Amino acid sequence: MDIAHTPPGVALRDVERLRDGGGRAVDLVAEEAPVALLYNDVPFAVMMATPADLDDFARGFSLSEGLVDDLDQIRAIETVELLEGIQLRIAVAPGARAASLDGKRGRLLPGRGGCGICGTRELEDSLRPPPRLQRVARFDPALLERALAQLPRHQPMNAATGAVHAAFWVDADGRISLSREDVGRHNALDKLIGALRKRGIAPDAGMLLLTSRASYEMVAKAAHASIGLVAAISAPTALAIDLARSAGMCLVGFARPGGCNVYARPEEAASP
Amino acid sequence: MDIAHTPPGVALRDVERLRDGGGRAVDLVAEEAPVALLYNDVPFAVMMATPADLDDFARGFSLSEGLVDDLDQIRAIETVELLEGIQLRIAVAPGARAASLDGKRGRLLPGRGGCGICGTRELEDSLRPPPRLQRVARFDPALLERALAQLPRHQPMNAATGAVHAAFWVDADGRISLSREDVGRHNALDKLIGALRKRGIAPDAGMLLLTSRASYEMVAKAAHASIGLVAAISAPTALAIDLARSAGMCLVGFARPGGCNVYARPEEAASP
Repeated sequence: MDIAHTPPGVALRDVERLRDGGGRAVDLVAEEAPVALLYNDVPFAVMMATPADLDDFARGFSLSEGLVDDLDQIRAIETVELLEGIQLRIAVAPGARAASLDGKRGRLLPGRGGCGICGTRELEDSLRPPPRLQRVARFDPALLERALAQLPRHQPMNAATGAVHAAFWVDADGRISLSREDVGRHNALDKLIGALRKRGIAPDAGMLLLTSRASYEMVAKAAHASIGLVAAISAPTALAIDLARSAGMCLVGFARPGGCNVYARPEEAASP
Repeated sequence: MDIAHTPPGVALRDVERLRDGGGRAVDLVAEEAPVALLYNDVPFAVMMATPADLDDFARGFSLSEGLVDDLDQIRAIETVELLEGIQLRIAVAPGARAASLDGKRGRLLPGRGGCGICGTRELEDSLRPPPRLQRVARFDPALLERALAQLPRHQPMNAATGAVHAAFWVDADGRISLSREDVGRHNALDKLIGALRKRGIAPDAGMLLLTSRASYEMVAKAAHASIGLVAAISAPTALAIDLARSAGMCLVGFARPGGCNVYARPEEAASP
């Protein structure tokens, strides 16, 4: 790669290689920065994230964390670069849940972080059962195979750094139509959700494909965004499987060329 | 593996395999549960974690997040299993920082989550420069090679599920003397830090080896625990490299059989 033209989210650092002859070199590494999300000027959370596609991140985080019901509740997104990191200043409509945060009491609300649930301080707030999914795209292993073959060319940051997760949207023809990358897998998913909704792409008309594991919070974010067909390249956790089954999701794990495992099917879900 | 005797942190779930002939089977998957940390009865954070070695987790999280200065400030750790998840009730001495949380005002403190910084709500709180490391073990690539060859037999949960991160302690002879696993890489590190300190193992007498990437928060946790030699199997981020250099840490990335990359050396650090 031409290091004079690095992709967004990629930085240069000196490295000493102890391999293949070795020596000093310049390496391409993933950028990571504290990104603070503020709603109507009230600080809500700070995430370590890759500083790229931050407007999509603001939209997707707001949706998948239930802070807004739809994008029309977001009036404006302003990105402010400061010495300490980046502020995403999100202006929301009065009806949005994010508008009920206020300077003093806002911080008393559970501050769920997008990278898990770690802003949450009490157990009762930590699991948030999503609504039962209404419409779920049918899982077709042949389309998954087709999508997997396209992955490398949709991961420019990872190709440069080897350190970045991605979330992909696979359309009904098995084509990757959108992809987003981030050092944090939850952030990559939030960016994708934001980009999907911005473009008006129906969440029940395609498949979410993740380079990571399917942990509880990944499945919960997808379900809250009405995405019912989720495939992860790595394993699911037990809790993620349980959530997928109760939400009526189709959850696929170990999605790799030549085969996969299906951990949940919508038809197996308990009746609503 | 004998599914009647699964390791702690591993659960059984039905799966439909679309590979190698396929069919219904029972799969071993990683457990994941909400684990709440309370200090003197004040809720501080909830993490999604693997429910194993939770005493080590309580100790390591408290140390690496700066909530106690040393283990003698922890008076007792009680594990309470509830329907919603697990409570770790940690009793701390009056002098500990964790003792200054109180029922109402406690939640106004930055609630840094162990899985990143996502409990934090304001940028100024998000980066916490560790003190300059005083003593750092010398990096020897031969010892790293020796340690890498031992990895598989120190990852029982991952061998069963393929979904679990690990943190290892490598002694001065290149022997893995301690290992801890978790669905969250930060949690695996916190568990290892807790176990190290409990056993009185000097943090400057060995090497921390991580199965994951070296992100900012992993390097920060290690530095706060006075661990100055850190090797990660995957890549570091730019911010993690910058932190390692300023703290005087030796940071190794892409630690794999046959070679590695050295991103920071203590002798390169700016004078304190």
